[in-house]
Amino acid sequence: MKLIIYSVRDAERPYITAWAKKTGHEVKMVTKPLNDETIELAQDCDGISIQQTAKLGEIYEKLAAMGIKQLSTRTVGVDMIDLDACKTNDIVVTNVPVYSPRAIAEMGVTQAMYLLRRIGEFRKQMSNDDFRWRDDLISNEIYNLTVGVVGLGNIGGATAQIYKALGAKVLAYDPSYNVEYEPYVEYTDFTTVIKSADILTLHTPLLPSTENMIAAPQFKMMKKNAYLINMARGGLVNTADLISALENHEIAGAGLDTLADETTFFSKKVSPDKVPADYKKLAAMPNVLITPHVAFLTQTSIRNMVEISLNDVAAIIEGKHSRNEIRM
Amino acid sequence: MKLIIYSVRDAERPYITAWAKKTGHEVKMVTKPLNDETIELAQDCDGISIQQTAKLGEIYEKLAAMGIKQLSTRTVGVDMIDLDACKTNDIVVTNVPVYSPRAIAEMGVTQAMYLLRRIGEFRKQMSNDDFRWRDDLISNEIYNLTVGVVGLGNIGGATAQIYKALGAKVLAYDPSYNVEYEPYVEYTDFTTVIKSADILTLHTPLLPSTENMIAAPQFKMMKKNAYLINMARGGLVNTADLISALENHEIAGAGLDTLADETTFFSKKVSPDKVPADYKKLAAMPNVLITPHVAFLTQTSIRNMVEISLNDVAAIIEGKHSRNEIRM
Repeated sequence: MKLIIYSVRDAERPYITAWAKKTGHEVKMVTKPLNDETIELAQDCDGISIQQTAKLGEIYEKLAAMGIKQLSTRTVGVDMIDLDACKTNDIVVTNVPVYSPRAIAEMGVTQAMYLLRRIGEFRKQMSNDDFRWRDDLISNEIYNLTVGVVGLGNIGGATAQIYKALGAKVLAYDPSYNVEYEPYVEYTDFTTVIKSADILTLHTPLLPSTENMIAAPQFKMMKKNAYLINMARGGLVNTADLISALENHEIAGAGLDTLADETTFFSKKVSPDKVPADYKKLAAMPNVLITPHVAFLTQTSIRNMVEISLNDVAAIIEGKHSRNEIRM
Repeated sequence: MKLIIYSVRDAERPYITAWAKKTGHEVKMVTKPLNDETIELAQDCDGISIQQTAKLGEIYEKLAAMGIKQLSTRTVGVDMIDLDACKTNDIVVTNVPVYSPRAIAEMGVTQAMYLLRRIGEFRKQMSNDDFRWRDDLISNEIYNLTVGVVGLGNIGGATAQIYKALGAKVLAYDPSYNVEYEPYVEYTDFTTVIKSADILTLHTPLLPSTENMIAAPQFKMMKKNAYLINMARGGLVNTADLISALENHEIAGAGLDTLADETTFFSKKVSPDKVPADYKKLAAMPNVLITPHVAFLTQTSIRNMVEISLNDVAAIIEGKHSRNEIRM
């Protein structure tokens, strides 16, 4: 069979080539996204893999006319796809819901360790030609600490395993109980996790019930020496309250790969006036570390996004089912 | 008995107070260092703990005259003490050779993870209002990597254990074989470690045989994606060759808590013209992370420095031996 893969990044090419060689299928690589114009490139193909945030346009009837029966996106989100139109035209949609929990877990631990060792504060001081150590910058070793994991899914579970391996005590809160993580965590209630954690790390989806789950009342309950780590979704944390908590020394610092208002500037090059004031305040603090939603960005993630997506394209074309099919 | 502890830092006070309470001994705390003038403060004391780099002065006969039989330094180094004068005056000298290998190991791992995740490069880009990810900043997950440990003593061993717990393959070189670390490492030769490591981490003392052990020939043997981590002694690495290797992309980056010429500016506040050009070059690179010799700086280290030193003071006064006695 012949597949077409849109929005190909250079980093994906070796994994696509390896997949094609392994499976014997032909894969046409296109750097442009799928839309009304580029759909013509799929004319001679049996299946499609995409990766884009822009809407696909009026392509669904054309796909059906071409005999293409599926769309596989190499992302978690499917919001750029018109699922109703897919249903009408008998097009099966798949996503890649999990590509590397460990990538995100490792980034969260990395940021926590950086903050814990006060490296930002030391670097700020060094930039003023001051190379002394100060009593207020003495840190702690991880095995002496309590880590609180909020949300114990794939990523929270991988995070818990790493902290446990480093010798920390790991408390976790999740509304559902997962027996798989019993060796690594002690399940408890949300308030106990918030109050006990030296490192509080968030790994829940953004839902009406989790939005602003960490706001002024939670910051007041947290330990003054605690670090907040958010590698999940910006909306879990009330940004204004976070800034207040940091300014008032209610917590010790924060490591953030995501911000509530990130869609206006993350993954973009913007003019200086488009950078939000909240971000600038946080980025200027030596006890805050921000990365631009790149916790997922490892070779393992890229490979899995490609392989899982292309495997799904092939499976659907062959009339099989995939566990990544979106229910419509 | 009554002890005097010189050069007390605020961070040490709680540990000193706790030790005094636990042992029932009296401890006089003095912020000044020990010298010809401050020795009078020891007049009514049975033993002394110090922590300073400045020479002690002409105090040795006075100590003997006061009936003081020992000097305990809360440091590794004893170079500020005149050991010949101690021998002549029957004064036993003890140091604190090991206070927290894990503190240093955790800092090394922290720096390696920060570099591996390209956080410095992302932050540099973000400071230019660019929040995109780039194909050349895709990182790797630790369990896919090979770590090379050079020097497998207390600190190298603790480092190996952490990397092993994170799932990495750990190779080690040390001229002596320590059976204790067999579960964590594969012993091999120096060249194999240099050539195989994705993270090369140094934990040897500075000796004539180890000085400049990482220089141009070693950088040329290293992997282009490798990070050099030096938490040990600056002189192990040829700084000029390191700068060349980084400029020529022979290695991917470096995490350094120590530099060959650090004594002129580390642990000091200096005027801008006293900051060495080599340091400035390295500090400006986004793939280099430098801290001012603070890898040891944790509460555990501070507590152990105090407790081990005070325990030794008490032991020597009571006529016992300590394994921390300096051979004279």
